Amino acid sequence: MSQDASADADPLPSWNDGPPARQAILDFVRITTDKTGPDFVPEAERIAAFDQDGTLWVEHPIYSQVMYCLDRVPAVVAKKPELKSVEPFKTVLSGNQAAIAKLSMKDLEKILVATLTGMSVTDFNAEVSAWITTAKHPKFGRLYTYLVYQPMLELLSYLRTNGYKTYIATGGGQDFVRVYSERVYGIPPEQVVGSVGGTSFGYTKDGEPFLTKDPRLLLNDDKAGKPEGIHLMIGRRPNAAFGNSSGDRQMLEYATAGGGSRLGMLVLHDDAEREFAYGPARGLPQTKIGTFPQTLADEAQKKGWTVISMKKDWKHVFPFEK
Amino acid sequence: MSQDASADADPLPSWNDGPPARQAILDFVRITTDKTGPDFVPEAERIAAFDQDGTLWVEHPIYSQVMYCLDRVPAVVAKKPELKSVEPFKTVLSGNQAAIAKLSMKDLEKILVATLTGMSVTDFNAEVSAWITTAKHPKFGRLYTYLVYQPMLELLSYLRTNGYKTYIATGGGQDFVRVYSERVYGIPPEQVVGSVGGTSFGYTKDGEPFLTKDPRLLLNDDKAGKPEGIHLMIGRRPNAAFGNSSGDRQMLEYATAGGGSRLGMLVLHDDAEREFAYGPARGLPQTKIGTFPQTLADEAQKKGWTVISMKKDWKHVFPFEK
Repeated sequence: MSQDASADADPLPSWNDGPPARQAILDFVRITTDKTGPDFVPEAERIAAFDQDGTLWVEHPIYSQVMYCLDRVPAVVAKKPELKSVEPFKTVLSGNQAAIAKLSMKDLEKILVATLTGMSVTDFNAEVSAWITTAKHPKFGRLYTYLVYQPMLELLSYLRTNGYKTYIATGGGQDFVRVYSERVYGIPPEQVVGSVGGTSFGYTKDGEPFLTKDPRLLLNDDKAGKPEGIHLMIGRRPNAAFGNSSGDRQMLEYATAGGGSRLGMLVLHDDAEREFAYGPARGLPQTKIGTFPQTLADEAQKKGWTVISMKKDWKHVFPFEK
Repeated sequence: MSQDASADADPLPSWNDGPPARQAILDFVRITTDKTGPDFVPEAERIAAFDQDGTLWVEHPIYSQVMYCLDRVPAVVAKKPELKSVEPFKTVLSGNQAAIAKLSMKDLEKILVATLTGMSVTDFNAEVSAWITTAKHPKFGRLYTYLVYQPMLELLSYLRTNGYKTYIATGGGQDFVRVYSERVYGIPPEQVVGSVGGTSFGYTKDGEPFLTKDPRLLLNDDKAGKPEGIHLMIGRRPNAAFGNSSGDRQMLEYATAGGGSRLGMLVLHDDAEREFAYGPARGLPQTKIGTFPQTLADEAQKKGWTVISMKKDWKHVFPFEK
């Protein structure tokens, strides 16, 4: 975690000057950390929650964790050869991208259960660690962990420097994101809230205790599940929340309804040149991943949430552009 | 949180000198914080997990949270008069202590569901806050929050001063303990792991978002549920764990199996004069609450866990004795 910025240095160098986005951040931090002001928040109560996919890193054309699951299928089938001729595993093994893209939600769930559960927590962490340091994004040809948004890294660091505890609240898998969250975002595993299943405690034949990931879903951390997950894992209402889609609506509603000074922000992907453009707010094309409908833009305006335009508000998108 | 002890001051003034207990604590902290040693633990990874009932505060003759639930019954019945003549509510309302003590586990569960779920998180917090600042322990005639163990408060503070994040891992309700954990133990709500149900996100008729506590149990944070809950909420294996009964066995096994220097400690209630005496380890009487069987004492010896004798290791039991 970088906390060594001097007081004089610009804490948000990749954000363009002025309203609305950069100024909203600076105002919020100034107001909530001013001991003499009416909206002062004691340091212990400063909580900021961030969606991950599409808010902290690239989510198109496919969530990185879904890519991980597809990539794991050959290894799973090698251990269970009976799956080789069974759908949806057969289609994934065929490598036919058009057919894979058409897999139903039910098929995807079967793949998720087969690749994310049934192994020990230790084995799972090792598998994700190995994948995340080698797998590359199909468009950018870089590691997924390089495709984080530089302005959001600066925002995370700026909030932490000002006493905020930064949390991830992701629809993705809690254990998956925990593997790299500290290294990539400076967010420790205990501050990752995500979709999460149960584990089962047991012993090896040598009597060593270990945990097995099991398919029982405890929390689907999306939409209403985000404030529910935040209550489960944090037990405090965040003062600030950051998202980019309908899946983050309830989290922003919950965070910004708490009284005092609150910050709700939504990243709008309107930058086809540097990243992607999808909406359909502001007339951008509708996509299945990261839907930002006009109704969400309308709610943002009504509630005073700030829409971040990637194109206008960000000088740089990725760290490697700097 | 008290972190202002000077380097010269005794960090554990209520612990009697020497082995095994006091020395085991000092050795563990010295070894895991010595940067030049082989068992050094980076500060971000220092985690200590504490059971609550019987480890941090009094659990006899009845868990304080069960007392809370019994005390809440009249208010619940006032809102739902149809429960007045229905068991187990009828028995609780009768005030017949002998009959109440005989209620079955199934009856108790009905009382827990009726008094801990169905209300908003905000209302629940207000109800617990009001109760915990007025209800008194039947034997000691003091607020429950005064009946914390002074040596354990010193231990919590000492670990935090040395960079450990202190967590509660309790079989009690996560939301219940969160109400007072920061004030009483210096442990913030996000560091309380407990038995926990789901919540449901919804809106008031004015459109304000709120969470309702619902009866769906996500985690029974006892026995095998303790390491499972620790993984769910923290995602790291603790370096140290503290308990007092069979319910803490798996947590201590999990924490102390992780390699490097580890600390597992069990509080033995062998002090009938200052608190209570129950076991049956070391021939103390068996009780339903806080069972510490001889098999647990045997496992402690085999695995190098330290048994804390309240009678011999603690100069003071409660803060008000000092």
